[in-house]
Amino acid sequence: MEKKQVAIVGASGYSGEELVRLLLNHPFAELTAVTSRQYAGRTLGEIFPKFANQPRAKGLRFTEPNVESLAKEAQVVFLALPHGLAAEFAAPLLRTGCKVIDLSADFRVKNPSVYKEYYAHDHPAPELLSQAVYGLPEVYRSKIQTSTLIASPGCYPTSILLPLVPLLKAGLISASGIIADSLSGVSGAGRKAELDYLFVECNESVRPYGVSKHRHLSEIEQELSLAAGETVTIQFTPHLIPVNRGILSTLYLAPLGAVVENGVSGSTGAPGNVAPLEAISEQIASCYRAAYAQEPFVRLLEGKALPDTKNVVGTNTIEIAWRLDPRTGRLIVMSAEDNLVKGASGQAVQSLNIMCGWPETTGLL
Amino acid sequence: MEKKQVAIVGASGYSGEELVRLLLNHPFAELTAVTSRQYAGRTLGEIFPKFANQPRAKGLRFTEPNVESLAKEAQVVFLALPHGLAAEFAAPLLRTGCKVIDLSADFRVKNPSVYKEYYAHDHPAPELLSQAVYGLPEVYRSKIQTSTLIASPGCYPTSILLPLVPLLKAGLISASGIIADSLSGVSGAGRKAELDYLFVECNESVRPYGVSKHRHLSEIEQELSLAAGETVTIQFTPHLIPVNRGILSTLYLAPLGAVVENGVSGSTGAPGNVAPLEAISEQIASCYRAAYAQEPFVRLLEGKALPDTKNVVGTNTIEIAWRLDPRTGRLIVMSAEDNLVKGASGQAVQSLNIMCGWPETTGLL
Amino acid sequence: MEKKQVAIVGASGYSGEELVRLLLNHPFAELTAVTSRQYAGRTLGEIFPKFANQPRAKGLRFTEPNVESLAKEAQVVFLALPHGLAAEFAAPLLRTGCKVIDLSADFRVKNPSVYKEYYAHDHPAPELLSQAVYGLPEVYRSKIQTSTLIASPGCYPTSILLPLVPLLKAGLISASGIIADSLSGVSGAGRKAELDYLFVECNESVRPYGVSKHRHLSEIEQELSLAAGETVTIQFTPHLIPVNRGILSTLYLAPLGAVVENGVSGSTGAPGNVAPLEAISEQIASCYRAAYAQEPFVRLLEGKALPDTKNVVGTNTIEIAWRLDPRTGRLIVMSAEDNLVKGASGQAVQSLNIMCGWPETTGLL
Amino acid sequence: MEKKQVAIVGASGYSGEELVRLLLNHPFAELTAVTSRQYAGRTLGEIFPKFANQPRAKGLRFTEPNVESLAKEAQVVFLALPHGLAAEFAAPLLRTGCKVIDLSADFRVKNPSVYKEYYAHDHPAPELLSQAVYGLPEVYRSKIQTSTLIASPGCYPTSILLPLVPLLKAGLISASGIIADSLSGVSGAGRKAELDYLFVECNESVRPYGVSKHRHLSEIEQELSLAAGETVTIQFTPHLIPVNRGILSTLYLAPLGAVVENGVSGSTGAPGNVAPLEAISEQIASCYRAAYAQEPFVRLLEGKALPDTKNVVGTNTIEIAWRLDPRTGRLIVMSAEDNLVKGASGQAVQSLNIMCGWPETTGLL
Repeated sequence: MEKKQVAIVGASGYSGEELVRLLLNHPFAELTAVTSRQYAGRTLGEIFPKFANQPRAKGLRFTEPNVESLAKEAQVVFLALPHGLAAEFAAPLLRTGCKVIDLSADFRVKNPSVYKEYYAHDHPAPELLSQAVYGLPEVYRSKIQTSTLIASPGCYPTSILLPLVPLLKAGLISASGIIADSLSGVSGAGRKAELDYLFVECNESVRPYGVSKHRHLSEIEQELSLAAGETVTIQFTPHLIPVNRGILSTLYLAPLGAVVENGVSGSTGAPGNVAPLEAISEQIASCYRAAYAQEPFVRLLEGKALPDTKNVVGTNTIEIAWRLDPRTGRLIVMSAEDNLVKGASGQAVQSLNIMCGWPETTGLL
Repeated sequence: MEKKQVAIVGASGYSGEELVRLLLNHPFAELTAVTSRQYAGRTLGEIFPKFANQPRAKGLRFTEPNVESLAKEAQVVFLALPHGLAAEFAAPLLRTGCKVIDLSADFRVKNPSVYKEYYAHDHPAPELLSQAVYGLPEVYRSKIQTSTLIASPGCYPTSILLPLVPLLKAGLISASGIIADSLSGVSGAGRKAELDYLFVECNESVRPYGVSKHRHLSEIEQELSLAAGETVTIQFTPHLIPVNRGILSTLYLAPLGAVVENGVSGSTGAPGNVAPLEAISEQIASCYRAAYAQEPFVRLLEGKALPDTKNVVGTNTIEIAWRLDPRTGRLIVMSAEDNLVKGASGQAVQSLNIMCGWPETTGLL
Repeated sequence: MEKKQVAIVGASGYSGEELVRLLLNHPFAELTAVTSRQYAGRTLGEIFPKFANQPRAKGLRFTEPNVESLAKEAQVVFLALPHGLAAEFAAPLLRTGCKVIDLSADFRVKNPSVYKEYYAHDHPAPELLSQAVYGLPEVYRSKIQTSTLIASPGCYPTSILLPLVPLLKAGLISASGIIADSLSGVSGAGRKAELDYLFVECNESVRPYGVSKHRHLSEIEQELSLAAGETVTIQFTPHLIPVNRGILSTLYLAPLGAVVENGVSGSTGAPGNVAPLEAISEQIASCYRAAYAQEPFVRLLEGKALPDTKNVVGTNTIEIAWRLDPRTGRLIVMSAEDNLVKGASGQAVQSLNIMCGWPETTGLL
Repeated sequence: MEKKQVAIVGASGYSGEELVRLLLNHPFAELTAVTSRQYAGRTLGEIFPKFANQPRAKGLRFTEPNVESLAKEAQVVFLALPHGLAAEFAAPLLRTGCKVIDLSADFRVKNPSVYKEYYAHDHPAPELLSQAVYGLPEVYRSKIQTSTLIASPGCYPTSILLPLVPLLKAGLISASGIIADSLSGVSGAGRKAELDYLFVECNESVRPYGVSKHRHLSEIEQELSLAAGETVTIQFTPHLIPVNRGILSTLYLAPLGAVVENGVSGSTGAPGNVAPLEAISEQIASCYRAAYAQEPFVRLLEGKALPDTKNVVGTNTIEIAWRLDPRTGRLIVMSAEDNLVKGASGQAVQSLNIMCGWPETTGLL
């Protein structure tokens, strides 16, 4: 395989650190630059001792981010920066001919006015939105292949979209009334010195937050609407739980063709059109198998097992299980992922592999 | 105040241990007997060192449970036993004239066939069901006052019923389509030596379980139906999270009078009947204030704060907050409690206080 | 009992919060003022929701600290402030006639030059040092009774001094070569927004810090030297472990009269003077019993049990166990306490009780 | 490289599971058999979902352990069994020509009577002791190369021996008076359904255990004695802390040539022979550099950083730092490792690599 030089802008946050881990172990990507304003001049191993004696980390030192240097040192640049700032780097980097994989929200939302509504400032580079590809490989693999700008999905969106997109595309669930109840580990809040994320404030604590309009809704609803072919508005409640990593999403859905208890769904007209639960259950299983049986990073749980974040932490795998509740007629789908891997840096490397023509699982298994 | 002697049958589990803690600090209740087949003959302080130098724990030693002895030693007996076994003790204890506060499920479900459906065995004492009072003081205070047999509610039920009952009674939400997504600390699984509850299996793990028919549904739906005046079937998903104590429930509801996005609710007919969200919001707030403003153990969060288990752990308080989502028209209600206190032993002591004519907060603040 | 008004200056840190909890439940102390520059103007319940519906917290609102107001509102003032700042409040408060219980290090070290060596600034009020009493009730009970200025001990010092002082006073261990290896929960670092104390940085992590000259050494060695009647220098290694609360100290000691393996101790001259281990063991047990059997907050573990922080968290108790190792001749003493209770606020309230002539355990059992 | 077939006997415990993880990712080792009496017949992915979609795990199913089958399926067999049982498999496996890497204690202690003293039963295969090599590659690399039976070291021993052996060999510290204070994550207790290791019993808890004669002392003292050239007896205190993985050992040592406070060491005679601390400090640093600068799995921390288990969890690296305390003259050495990797399965794979002539870091970086 042809090797590529890669760089990470903003390598000192949790996503950046996880990118470093993955790229230091990648056989075809050579990590040539890591930037951090805070740590410029210090070695990688000094700030993240766990990398200190990896042979490939030996020469690496944090630098101030600089577009010209980056363009010399790398063919692909990862941006692990706050929204707003990422776009400022993406535009000049693309002009130098670099490919960009952006882990921020800047290029995920196609509509700049939706972006402004959710992120409270004008989009910094709306002219680039049309060329950006939403980096969810299981959905946009072929577009990723030829893209120069990847908008890598958020952690909550990945955990919600992968279970929902196939069902919506197949018309197996109602596009309305969707509820996503999600639990996230504390690394999702980033490496920020804030009281709310101190050990003592998070340990032995569970709490909802951002009720009821979390920023990630903008990209979730955009992608669900595209899958459903109609405008989708969902209910989304994130919670903070005391684990370092992991997102568990529980989705409450109305299967079409079923009579859902008390009218939650009920798209069918006459009782005669109602499919028995077994038939619906089989349709859902078929749909998921068709979508994901060959996907290397989706694990469908078809037996008794239910998703558990401890089975996916440190990996690029998302676990998905589902139950059709005979009491209510509702479909419950549950997913588990590592918010920093499949929900961020692993998925970004998956896109890198696709863009570079390398086997998609390279460095991720 | 007149003092009473009290005893705990099954004092070595987590609920039993918490009862011990509360009763050793209770000014009017004198704990005279603690039973445990496993630890019979050993002192309380030997098994639970944290009680060892409490003056009132000094003489206490675990004994084999024996109805005759208990009847001599106590006027009120707490049963912290597995379901099935509890009823076997309740019946003879009641015949001796003791009052019984049962923390198991045995007397919570009024209908013995529902009991059998959920607990997989015939009800052991159906003749007592009619005299048992469901020990949720905020709902059944006056019945508790004169009862001789209290069926103290389960932990999940308490966290779901207290937020829902007033809304259903007031007709402010649809009785159909209710979803309860709950997160519980590991003590909820009891003090059992099982692989699933080992530290390494629970730490850095989050997982749903018992999807989709948890035993607690039987009592939850019974009480919701009574409040609504119609049969209520809910969707309930419990999850296990790595904290010792605490339950966080997030409830998804359809307010009546509102147009809920995509037909989730919509009990109103013509648009002319639709109340503006502000009006509904005010109705909900008024309803909660009327129900709970004077309740010593319910904390309504009306500002920006959301429930957090760390604010209730170790206390008998339940926190409740709500948000009416203008995007979806749905009402989100969130509650937090300590599963071992308001969800079990604290609530049982609250009933004790009521039964004995003591101030309801005695020993609980 | 005669009631007293009390105030807390610096009530928004972890020690301050714990003082609030204890004083709101104290039958004779009336908490009349809580200060916090950061939260001035906000209610106690807003910042610490867990106190929101305690009847006695209802009227309380954080204020800017002001000596004149404090002197009007309280007869005893607790200072839960950083070192240096505490002394600035203590001096004028004492002049107004208030009694002061200081939880900072400012009045613990008698020698202002040692203070400067460890705290890197001149002592702010050296003229008060002679009147300050080190607030370790098990050692200085009678002095506390008549004191107007209490220097309440640090968390590590309490966990190390209580096990060592009786042995040194009785001459049962060598005053030289003492090693204290201590493990502390994260609340010991205070409620500070620093990266090092984020959940993700502390969870699944164990680390030593401050090797080898922690500030607490100054007061530890001062008190050990007083007990031993000679200058004592110890080895002290603190570690940070992922629990909210709790300190576990393991002490390595050389019993006098024993032949310690490889010359660690060996104060005795000829082999003829060497006591058999059984005799030494009995001397140590007798010494501890004489010192602590009647102490309400010291739990001597004489059976198989070893200290465990979970048995003391939330209480003012310190657990102490010891083992004389026949292989090495060394004495291992282990202690467990809650760093915020016996290690800080509970101990301060214990001093309050003594100063006010109330039963020493008031509000602490 | 020539590939080898490998098998794991006892693959369902924590060490076994970690061996599976490492061997599934090993480029030259092909995992052909995993045995477990408890799970015989079930697939690897069913019991450990995290392996379910690894291509190389697809065909693997747990089997009953059987020497003949194992001999056909593998050239090297790992034993992850309880002591006593391991030797029963090792003997017949060796006779079939298999090489054996044993993770139990059975072949670590050379002297069968010491084995009996610590493990309370006769050694099951004393005739094999002479051929077993203690699998600590940094010490016994060349012997491992040609060995057929590896006694892979325990987790505590690895964390204590690697810091101590070079210092003892170089005569830089006293062989007497050594203290090892160690903190272990809960996975060290194994995957056993016991009350003591339940989440609720370990979380928010820290406790010493096994004071003062832990089984691992037998191998620790054997190896220290060999390094020192004299009989070494140490003080060892293990503690249980609430993390899944990780061991942190803090070692208290007396540097030779230094005057240690209060006579702890003092091997030198006259004051004239006492080396200044700087000189000793340089000797220690030189000794560690000579021993470990080229070792791929030892990270010497020479700057301000101290060991932290979070920097080594999931890796085969041990971190070592040291401080010479000018106040006491004592040398404090601290180490951090993952008890399941460098402390167990990673180290066993390191031995495998050496035995097979593969690069030593294969599959471990």
